[in-house]
Amino acid sequence: MADPITDKIDETHELIASDKVEGTAVYSRTNEKLGTVNHFMVDKRTGHVAYAVMSFGGFLGLGSRYHPLPWSALTYDPNLGGYVVDLTPEQLKSAPSYTSEALPNWDDQVYSHRIDEYYEGTMGH
Amino acid sequence: MADPITDKIDETHELIASDKVEGTAVYSRTNEKLGTVNHFMVDKRTGHVAYAVMSFGGFLGLGSRYHPLPWSALTYDPNLGGYVVDLTPEQLKSAPSYTSEALPNWDDQVYSHRIDEYYEGTMGH
Repeated sequence: MADPITDKIDETHELIASDKVEGTAVYSRTNEKLGTVNHFMVDKRTGHVAYAVMSFGGFLGLGSRYHPLPWSALTYDPNLGGYVVDLTPEQLKSAPSYTSEALPNWDDQVYSHRIDEYYEGTMGH
Repeated sequence: MADPITDKIDETHELIASDKVEGTAVYSRTNEKLGTVNHFMVDKRTGHVAYAVMSFGGFLGLGSRYHPLPWSALTYDPNLGGYVVDLTPEQLKSAPSYTSEALPNWDDQVYSHRIDEYYEGTMGH
């Protein structure tokens, strides 16, 4: 007899707890460690993770630099145990970023469009 | 002259940082406080927030009870400064939940289907 629950299993994707992703390493396409996921920016209405905000550098949060990365630009690599973003460290340097001393205004939607346009241009999608 | 950035603003939705949502209050349809958002369960592949896991009760995490709520069941109420879920406290009591002493196995996709089916049945969508 068909089981209505198990029949639907293939539609389900793997889930991960937000507090496990926060702190996970991010690597370049050549497997250099770029930083770690600090937090997400979530679309209030749809519940979609718009950006994973990667941090690197600094000490105890002082002097850290934050890079908002589109979630779609991140691929989880089970062998590395972290996310791979198809960028070189040089491309990352010219990507939109901010410091804890000058946080962006996320209510300014022009800011998020700049991020999206940078990654659309750089990553060719 | 048309600005290709500002022309797209209406398509953008409001973003919120995950570390700001974590800790936000959740209310019933009659404005009773049910608990607070503890963390999210995120679909690794699509970046969609599948569940906001609400916690309540307990002391310093001991004895807390966790309720995974579909993100789509939560509506942000700016006046309350928290999320409203269209459930009574009684409906919540019979909803899928777990304690920190008996965490669910999220790799078991039957578990998440049970949650989805409960809320589809209860909330009529």
